[in-house]
Amino acid sequence: MVKLNQNYKALQQSYLFSTIANKVKAFQQANPDARIIRLGIGDVTMPLVTPVVDALKNASAEMGVKETFRGYGDEQGYGFLIDAVADYYKREMGVTLGAGSVFISDGAKSDVANFTDLFDNDNVIVIPDPVYPVYMDSNVMLGRKISLIRGTEENGFLPMPTDDLEGDIFYLCSPNNPTGAVYTKQQLKQWVDFALKKGALIFFDAAYESFIVDPDLPRSIYQIEGAERCAVEFCSLSKTAGFTGTRCGYTIVPKEIEIDGQSLNRMWLRRQTTKYNGTAYIIQRGAEAVFTEEGYRACKENIAYYLGNAKVIADTLDELGIWYTGGINSPYIWLKCGMNSWDFFDRLLNECGIVGTPGSGFGACGEGYFRLTAFNTRENTIEAMQRFKTMFKQK
Amino acid sequence: MVKLNQNYKALQQSYLFSTIANKVKAFQQANPDARIIRLGIGDVTMPLVTPVVDALKNASAEMGVKETFRGYGDEQGYGFLIDAVADYYKREMGVTLGAGSVFISDGAKSDVANFTDLFDNDNVIVIPDPVYPVYMDSNVMLGRKISLIRGTEENGFLPMPTDDLEGDIFYLCSPNNPTGAVYTKQQLKQWVDFALKKGALIFFDAAYESFIVDPDLPRSIYQIEGAERCAVEFCSLSKTAGFTGTRCGYTIVPKEIEIDGQSLNRMWLRRQTTKYNGTAYIIQRGAEAVFTEEGYRACKENIAYYLGNAKVIADTLDELGIWYTGGINSPYIWLKCGMNSWDFFDRLLNECGIVGTPGSGFGACGEGYFRLTAFNTRENTIEAMQRFKTMFKQK
Repeated sequence: MVKLNQNYKALQQSYLFSTIANKVKAFQQANPDARIIRLGIGDVTMPLVTPVVDALKNASAEMGVKETFRGYGDEQGYGFLIDAVADYYKREMGVTLGAGSVFISDGAKSDVANFTDLFDNDNVIVIPDPVYPVYMDSNVMLGRKISLIRGTEENGFLPMPTDDLEGDIFYLCSPNNPTGAVYTKQQLKQWVDFALKKGALIFFDAAYESFIVDPDLPRSIYQIEGAERCAVEFCSLSKTAGFTGTRCGYTIVPKEIEIDGQSLNRMWLRRQTTKYNGTAYIIQRGAEAVFTEEGYRACKENIAYYLGNAKVIADTLDELGIWYTGGINSPYIWLKCGMNSWDFFDRLLNECGIVGTPGSGFGACGEGYFRLTAFNTRENTIEAMQRFKTMFKQK
Repeated sequence: MVKLNQNYKALQQSYLFSTIANKVKAFQQANPDARIIRLGIGDVTMPLVTPVVDALKNASAEMGVKETFRGYGDEQGYGFLIDAVADYYKREMGVTLGAGSVFISDGAKSDVANFTDLFDNDNVIVIPDPVYPVYMDSNVMLGRKISLIRGTEENGFLPMPTDDLEGDIFYLCSPNNPTGAVYTKQQLKQWVDFALKKGALIFFDAAYESFIVDPDLPRSIYQIEGAERCAVEFCSLSKTAGFTGTRCGYTIVPKEIEIDGQSLNRMWLRRQTTKYNGTAYIIQRGAEAVFTEEGYRACKENIAYYLGNAKVIADTLDELGIWYTGGINSPYIWLKCGMNSWDFFDRLLNECGIVGTPGSGFGACGEGYFRLTAFNTRENTIEAMQRFKTMFKQK
């Protein structure tokens, strides 16, 4: 008699986005003339840039010609894209990635969720609260021991290690989803030193790195000395280049990381060659175009547009004296709503026709907070903030 | 101190294809004028068909326009492709797939390797020998109890259930990789009845189904009554449409399968929504084109070409009186070489300049057998068989 993985029973069902959808639908039915503005979405809205589209079309054409057709590629990705990623790290972050350390994937979600499979169940997994739910769920599926570290107003939603913090694998996300908070180099140095001292690992999710405009803030954990001995970095083109529906990411596993005489890099290579068959050639050619001078400039223009929206929101909160994180080096704004997150959601929807995301949906520490995002048009963002101000001034 | 998954130490290192590459390189260096013909490859060689290339180009263009741009799609795939797969099953196999049972993926390898994660470690996994190595390796990574069932000349490399066969999850691959052998409906009925009686599951790998030309042979396990209560089917466009480098597949998880009151379909949905972010929109549009009348006709022409090559090989073996499986409803020919597989490899390379794959590379029961494939040109296949005949007649 076949037996199921019982750990799935411990997964929390998330009704966050379906509850939001139902509330929005009810509001729209009751108020057919209301023009709802959605600042809840975590998905990009601008199309792929022209150099990427051209590369995708060219690669599609290549696949139709015998001489340029490509069958199976290496599971870890084509050399042309691995080299482009390495050049990007060198140029943008001053980081030299070791040969063989870059693995191309179909996005950070798959890799960040699969990577924990390389470890024994007898590890303590440490996850910030609030946070992107995949870290938690992928470990619950394996029945892992999970411990949460609290994001609060006091630590600016950037939890730091303390001498008595126990754990073996630490997930960090910076710029953070959902809070938009960004660790400084000094803060990441504390984390790296802590991990090295404990023989622990850091899983660093850098999916939003390209939104960092402050040159003093780290975009890669490898900008921190020693990180190549204790950190795996996950990144994605989803937010960098609008690839949420095009699916390409990369994971850096330094060859320097040895655990009990085994190379983590070799284990991940073995995992990928056994359980993955590589990212589509066409998509890898599109991704390559992101890292060209022309492609990256165009992507940066889109990011600047989103950051302009974030600034409209941040400026409004500043004017109203509302506490928040993010909004500068991130497409997310995490504001203190001073009431239950869902009550604030209802108020914002009913009084302003604005849809956001209740902070409690990202973890218990998110209660009392609320997420707005920059992924709408400038015009809508400005109008939403006008309505927001009107509501607050009436208060 | 972080601890690794110790099961990885139990993985066999496969030197099969690297050993072949080294031997071929040495031969070419020693015989610079020899024209080597590769019949070892398991990858397609013909380009994508025009309707698919056009669909890929069109979808790429859509991604560059705000109005038609697509961000995140559902993890289980777009409705247009799910419907196209369901229509294909209906039209080609007379099978009605239940709503919500089709999951689009980046290929059968990922899904077949990840699916076993849904089960408890306390299951006995039954795998045929010889077989595609992913079934074994993905279970070794989890430390599962694995039992092998033997493919032999007597059972035509199609192992059947016996009353005393123990197990909870049974992997079947038909048409088989590497043997090309295909289960009949009667044989699959025995497997389905056996699984239902035992409360076991069948993982049915149908990656080569489109090579079946005999209308009496089953292309889907759902052509067998009762299979919807005990079988998950994995399929791929890799061989159907030359998608080995384009990456799209689908997995069927019937909603009828309930284990201990839990729906397997819902568990897989939860797995995919947590650990996968969907297949690229562009690729799904390319896949949709495979299932159009025009697209499928063109794909079938390519398959007919490969099957023509297989026939050239099969006819040669018939003429020489060599025992084999496959060669008719499969791109693979699995021949009895009457000596150690690697000795035969060396002889074929040194005397004929032909590269094949030693059967022992696919499992202990493959010793004494050898795999040739249809993925070369007709001209090369004919020449290879001429050389083969010359060698055998000199014997």
